[in-house]
Amino acid sequence: MSADLPDEFETIARLFRPLAEGDPAARGLLDDAAVLPGRGGHDLVLSKDALVEGVHFLHGDPIDLVARKLLRVNLSDLAAKGAEPFGYLLVTAWPNGTSFASKERFAAGLAEDQRAFGVRLLGGDTVSTPGPLTFSVTALGWVPHGRAPARSGARPGDVVVVSGSIGDGWLGLRAARGELHGLEAARLEALARHYRLPEPRLPLLKLVREAATASLDVSDGLIADLGHIAAASGVAIDVELDRVPVSRAARAWLDNRTDPVVSRLDLATGGDDYEIACTVRHDQLDLVLKGAERAGVPMHAIGRVTAGQGVRVTFEGDPVPVDRTGWKHG
Amino acid sequence: MSADLPDEFETIARLFRPLAEGDPAARGLLDDAAVLPGRGGHDLVLSKDALVEGVHFLHGDPIDLVARKLLRVNLSDLAAKGAEPFGYLLVTAWPNGTSFASKERFAAGLAEDQRAFGVRLLGGDTVSTPGPLTFSVTALGWVPHGRAPARSGARPGDVVVVSGSIGDGWLGLRAARGELHGLEAARLEALARHYRLPEPRLPLLKLVREAATASLDVSDGLIADLGHIAAASGVAIDVELDRVPVSRAARAWLDNRTDPVVSRLDLATGGDDYEIACTVRHDQLDLVLKGAERAGVPMHAIGRVTAGQGVRVTFEGDPVPVDRTGWKHG
Repeated sequence: MSADLPDEFETIARLFRPLAEGDPAARGLLDDAAVLPGRGGHDLVLSKDALVEGVHFLHGDPIDLVARKLLRVNLSDLAAKGAEPFGYLLVTAWPNGTSFASKERFAAGLAEDQRAFGVRLLGGDTVSTPGPLTFSVTALGWVPHGRAPARSGARPGDVVVVSGSIGDGWLGLRAARGELHGLEAARLEALARHYRLPEPRLPLLKLVREAATASLDVSDGLIADLGHIAAASGVAIDVELDRVPVSRAARAWLDNRTDPVVSRLDLATGGDDYEIACTVRHDQLDLVLKGAERAGVPMHAIGRVTAGQGVRVTFEGDPVPVDRTGWKHG
Repeated sequence: MSADLPDEFETIARLFRPLAEGDPAARGLLDDAAVLPGRGGHDLVLSKDALVEGVHFLHGDPIDLVARKLLRVNLSDLAAKGAEPFGYLLVTAWPNGTSFASKERFAAGLAEDQRAFGVRLLGGDTVSTPGPLTFSVTALGWVPHGRAPARSGARPGDVVVVSGSIGDGWLGLRAARGELHGLEAARLEALARHYRLPEPRLPLLKLVREAATASLDVSDGLIADLGHIAAASGVAIDVELDRVPVSRAARAWLDNRTDPVVSRLDLATGGDDYEIACTVRHDQLDLVLKGAERAGVPMHAIGRVTAGQGVRVTFEGDPVPVDRTGWKHG
């Protein structure tokens, strides 16, 4: 390390300690551990996700956006569990020679999203690596005891609902790679931004906590993730592909496609959506849809839970064959 | 990925789900998050450390030992905070092409230390990486509310005590690299094993909780870590180098050295010891030393806390100059 580069301790002091101000649990990052008062009557929900350069984000992606995505994919997990996030632990593995300016931009991205989402850095570890940029976050949130929906609570008769729109993560990755053609530049930019900066659905967390029988955030792809709920709950899920909500950008993309069913299936299996997919009792559906509308993040009913196993997909009533790709990481 | 290799989901099901059995907080690893009942009257202590191949362990180190070291360095943090560990979250980043047999050995190492230390896997993330093996653990432990010693509580008049022996981590790294000569093969092997498999000082955690005014585990090097306590507490620390405990293997190494003071300073600045260094009130010293003896992990008084700042080192009464290496990561 060259003499004029701040070392690990100075980097922590200058960049990361300010992110920990205001929460005594962080102990000013002057300790090896965070110390968090337990809350009687509440459950602590912990999500731990990692991002690796070249796997989960692209070489050259703006590093402040990478920092924000790192935080957001973990906050998305908490939202799907109905948990109110308050803090996180962070591991950063920097390739040798990473500039201090890069680390500064990374910290600035974290600071921006800390303000946006009301969370604080509580601790972690800073290491070097001969490999690619690698980050991991453990996000923490509270939920009243016993109220975090699992994947395993879906019951026949429940309705499947999903927030926002599905497919923009997958289209956004292709846009960011320059592989998407035939769309206006502004739309391509919006899609790429959506991939780089997903929106954790925190406005829905109280609704999820109150009404969801099973819930998760859509990261593997809608069909695969509904498959996780079906498997964990021991039920079948019927999805009406034509009712899966898509964005204006995705509609513009669909307009150029020759096979609308295959293309809609692409969107529903692509992943990286970070929307909430959950099941709710039929008699709660109206309350949920109206509550989501009030929260500013619309939800849509896209299917139902039945006896059996697996996910069955239809388009305008006709069965759509789903191969293993709907069930597996790409 | 070749067709006959288990994919991520099968790897989790076959190797990692068994590690989560028995704690409902893990939700059978079938969820995106762990859900942990809060404990009124207790604090949750969270430690998050990462290990990178080629940085924190050597290429070719047995991967079951790497898994165990990963767990142990985090449990060591909890022990120094007086927290009783119960579980952990795990991120594994596997280079493409890592064999299933390697992952099996990794999981077997975790299973062995889970049994030894009474902890369970609660959740995490499995990703691939184009870079080196990279692991991170978030370890969790409970401590009665307000009883986790910080780095900042040392007061003039306190005595500095340290557990076990200091320097075997540093000697062990050199032994593992084949850089240590003039010692019997059995000693070299024991030292290398000590580096690869440090012993978290969990038997001392209740004593630390009851008596330590400041506490940490020795990872950066004894002198540097005492410097962290001095800085956080706003005090000076006097260390008597001749009283710093060393192992038989280290004594055999010292016998071959021409400058005992420089060599002892090497041991006290080397790091990777994972012993507990703490400060205790003078009138508690006897209780602490006897309690440690009863717990089977001896502690030794090696210095005292005074007004001022920084760490002053003496050897048989004579000042020993300490350069920046005592204060920085190597």
